[in-house]
Amino acid sequence: MRRHDHQTTQADLTAGAVLAPYLQEQAAEFLRSLRLHRENSAPTDAGTHAAEAAAGALRRSSRRIGGTLHTFRAALDTAWAEQLRTELAWLSGTLAREHAYATRLNRLLEALHALSGTSLPTARTGSGSDAAGDKERAALGVGAARAGALLERQLTLARTRAHSAALQALGSSRFHAVADAVALLASEVPLAAAATAPAEEMLHGPADRAEQQLLGAVAALPSDEAVEPYNEAQDAPWHRTRLLLRLHRYAHEVVRGAPDPVLVAPGRALDLHRDASEAAAAAASAARTPRIAPATAYALGVLHADQRHEVEAARGVFRESWPYATAVTAP
Amino acid sequence: MRRHDHQTTQADLTAGAVLAPYLQEQAAEFLRSLRLHRENSAPTDAGTHAAEAAAGALRRSSRRIGGTLHTFRAALDTAWAEQLRTELAWLSGTLAREHAYATRLNRLLEALHALSGTSLPTARTGSGSDAAGDKERAALGVGAARAGALLERQLTLARTRAHSAALQALGSSRFHAVADAVALLASEVPLAAAATAPAEEMLHGPADRAEQQLLGAVAALPSDEAVEPYNEAQDAPWHRTRLLLRLHRYAHEVVRGAPDPVLVAPGRALDLHRDASEAAAAAASAARTPRIAPATAYALGVLHADQRHEVEAARGVFRESWPYATAVTAP
Repeated sequence: MRRHDHQTTQADLTAGAVLAPYLQEQAAEFLRSLRLHRENSAPTDAGTHAAEAAAGALRRSSRRIGGTLHTFRAALDTAWAEQLRTELAWLSGTLAREHAYATRLNRLLEALHALSGTSLPTARTGSGSDAAGDKERAALGVGAARAGALLERQLTLARTRAHSAALQALGSSRFHAVADAVALLASEVPLAAAATAPAEEMLHGPADRAEQQLLGAVAALPSDEAVEPYNEAQDAPWHRTRLLLRLHRYAHEVVRGAPDPVLVAPGRALDLHRDASEAAAAAASAARTPRIAPATAYALGVLHADQRHEVEAARGVFRESWPYATAVTAP
Repeated sequence: MRRHDHQTTQADLTAGAVLAPYLQEQAAEFLRSLRLHRENSAPTDAGTHAAEAAAGALRRSSRRIGGTLHTFRAALDTAWAEQLRTELAWLSGTLAREHAYATRLNRLLEALHALSGTSLPTARTGSGSDAAGDKERAALGVGAARAGALLERQLTLARTRAHSAALQALGSSRFHAVADAVALLASEVPLAAAATAPAEEMLHGPADRAEQQLLGAVAALPSDEAVEPYNEAQDAPWHRTRLLLRLHRYAHEVVRGAPDPVLVAPGRALDLHRDASEAAAAAASAARTPRIAPATAYALGVLHADQRHEVEAARGVFRESWPYATAVTAP
């Protein structure tokens, strides 16, 4: 209800009157998540899940505050906005790593199960003609089990390190300064003098520019023919598009009161693209472990190619779900 | 011109008058190819190419004669037809193997080049952000080179053996009996008494049954959801469909004077499906070579997955190009 009022009466409001409630709401969410995270820092099972959920909420509000400070910096105390934004990017990046390693491991183990067929025992026909396929899948199965164990070891270690780094960050004086700044933001937003101008004048321009940057990035995405399927360096324009879509989403939330519903599916496709791209890189990296068995390396190769095909599939889904006709290069 | 007359006046002809010219034409083609093959058996470069082309033509006419003997056996001396058909299947199978190994090696080496990017040096941007991708592609490159050498060794050996087996077969008394039977066929087709009935009565029924078997096989193809992507044993229904499509094509040639043009693209897709399926199996088999380096096994894993995705892509092309709406399970 509040959002609806906010949206319909926005034409009459000043930029500050639109921007401040959004930032204060996100700041309050940040502080609530931080409290929840502290209350659940004991390493019990339930506590771990609650702490993970709280860290996720902390990242979400950090990204929204940071994105808003960036897009609408002209209506804010610019130096303060840029500084807090940098610190929030550091924080959400640090917190994201643990989650990313956990997600990556799950994705890779699920893919390995699907590839080696161990998750689909009932689909087997049991007829004699399966013998050749069975032999190949059994060979893949041994390697897949070892590859899974290797990935689990490597990514669990990385995750544990990321967890320690996150806890260390949350106890640092650098973090306390961020938390203090957000607590101040929750009570009062340091607006620029220009924020007394009408919202339509001060906020719609930056929001439109965020949208134009997204449209420009999408239009500049290379076609599939121009891309080498296994060259992970060429994923960069897609990753950049993902970040621009996120900035656009937050700007839309500020100005219209809610994210643009037509960009939900493309955004999800770009998330999957990023996940598959990083999972493929993790498989390739595991394959460079010294002294692994050939069967393990083989399974990691299959896994790498599988995830690279997921990357391409995600691009296809992005193109199909992208709502604007002009801006996407045909596959 | 001849074909056109053949087609338009067929309604008035007996089954024998339609069947005999087709079989005699194919038998003449068989004998011509055999002569060409013998004239080019010296292992010079030009001779090798001419011999390969002649072997291909020999296989094509063998398949057409064999398929026709099978589909229209009721209009022919049945025992003779079944016996010659079995011998022609042996011959075309023996001759096909050498060609298949050569095709498979080419396909796998081309895929390896594409995967390791060595065939696309100009597409590199050279910017600093390529470093991670470069490292992965370089790692894949070393393994890809070794995997290529391994596949080349294994498939060239298999091809050489298949070549010797084909030459041995062509010099055998078993083959001379086949060639004699085809020479007889070129001058006189051993028709059944029933072949004096009108072509429409005797030939359209069997041709329709060949089509129904194809449609039934296509309708029974499992959906992609029911299939485990890396289970090569589950390719069998597609391979069977490919053979039924071939039988239908030859029956169409006999009865209508030309293959059905709407089935050219689906047929090509099933050929690609078979090629990719066998290439994937060859990569998996090479990965089971004892004492290979992990980098080699990794590249073979990537290659295996890549070819399995080609298998799925070929199924997609088949579904898209299949001209009848009812009979294909949705992807």
